[in-house]
Amino acid sequence: MLSKAKLKQYQQLGSKKFRQKYGLFVVEGLKSVNELVKSDWTVECILCTSSFSDQHNQNLNFQCDSISREEFYKISGQKNPQEILAIAEIARPTLAESNWEIALDTINDPGNLGTIIRIADWYGITKIYCSKNSVDMFNSKTIQASMGSFLRVELVEGNLDELLRNKEVYATLLEGANIRTMDKPQAGVILIGNEANGISKEVLDALNPVAVSIPRIGKAESLNAAIATAICCERLIG
Amino acid sequence: MLSKAKLKQYQQLGSKKFRQKYGLFVVEGLKSVNELVKSDWTVECILCTSSFSDQHNQNLNFQCDSISREEFYKISGQKNPQEILAIAEIARPTLAESNWEIALDTINDPGNLGTIIRIADWYGITKIYCSKNSVDMFNSKTIQASMGSFLRVELVEGNLDELLRNKEVYATLLEGANIRTMDKPQAGVILIGNEANGISKEVLDALNPVAVSIPRIGKAESLNAAIATAICCERLIG
Repeated sequence: MLSKAKLKQYQQLGSKKFRQKYGLFVVEGLKSVNELVKSDWTVECILCTSSFSDQHNQNLNFQCDSISREEFYKISGQKNPQEILAIAEIARPTLAESNWEIALDTINDPGNLGTIIRIADWYGITKIYCSKNSVDMFNSKTIQASMGSFLRVELVEGNLDELLRNKEVYATLLEGANIRTMDKPQAGVILIGNEANGISKEVLDALNPVAVSIPRIGKAESLNAAIATAICCERLIG
Repeated sequence: MLSKAKLKQYQQLGSKKFRQKYGLFVVEGLKSVNELVKSDWTVECILCTSSFSDQHNQNLNFQCDSISREEFYKISGQKNPQEILAIAEIARPTLAESNWEIALDTINDPGNLGTIIRIADWYGITKIYCSKNSVDMFNSKTIQASMGSFLRVELVEGNLDELLRNKEVYATLLEGANIRTMDKPQAGVILIGNEANGISKEVLDALNPVAVSIPRIGKAESLNAAIATAICCERLIG
């Protein structure tokens, strides 16, 4: 049983303001909940619908409380959720530093951010810097798209020109060193820009990054931000 | 002015059945509409809200009919649409063949399919084979995520084992030739599997593809289907 006060609190976690106020966030879907439970993060509770519990109860390795479908959909941020979610504390265990890092200048799409977190985790990157007006990492869509990788990647929000000072920064631009043939650096920060507008002029001027380019073979005007991130990681780190 | 019958017809284009019945689909957003207008595709009409038309009218290079916000939202498949869309005919001008092609085994997410179409276009690929139960290319979310690239990439739906017979097929699997160090083939088909389940056993058995792998450096269990597509294109074609 969930008290009315708790239900209301969990429902509010859809907004960044309340995630920060309560220090809690929502993790949806069985795969992500399974990874969360196995991790060092602190879980407040795990909730599911009774139909989910009837279907999976034998196979779950954790305690899960059934709530009504109506209550579940009030907490879930998804249109068609898997009917299980966890409420976890926003308090990240310390992560080892990695040679490579990623910096994002105003990424707006929660799904893109989650996908980039998953890419970072694939390439062993444990830190992503985000400009102040980027989408929040603990958005439930971001958490879901990261497929559990949010557990192993830290996001640091702030002014990129301060955060990246004295770091070797690589930015994908239309003109730059061919990422396929350039010498592979040992470490650095891969800087990716906004979905529509790319990297802002202020950030470019302040950081003066090494320009790299992904030569185009066909006719698409540009690549999605997450795709550009993946190709940079594959060429610079892989 | 849009007749009631036309409004109803356009509203129905959210469903594949009616797209096929009428031979029409919806293209949303100014960037995609601009590309559509410049292409050889046949456009039935372009619709926008009056607030969009007030804001952009000076800068539009095409005839655009204002409809009410209410009517617009009935046709649009988006929650927060840019308030312009085109209705176009599903009749693709012929495209030149490319050395490389992509095949998708049951891609379910419309956004993923659109992103893959955009990747194909970036790498000069003009044909994508889709298994019969994949999401439809003319879904408005797919069209939007492709950012105009649907104009230059053809989707062929059918049984992959028939469509790909006698072709050299490369499939990303956990075990396979290292995609970073293998010899680069001149042509072939990049086969990508379902978001959750990968490539089905039936397709693998029927096609017996060359197995390639993207070595993992960190800990993510897998990569998103569109990301895997991008890395395969970058390594095999780039």
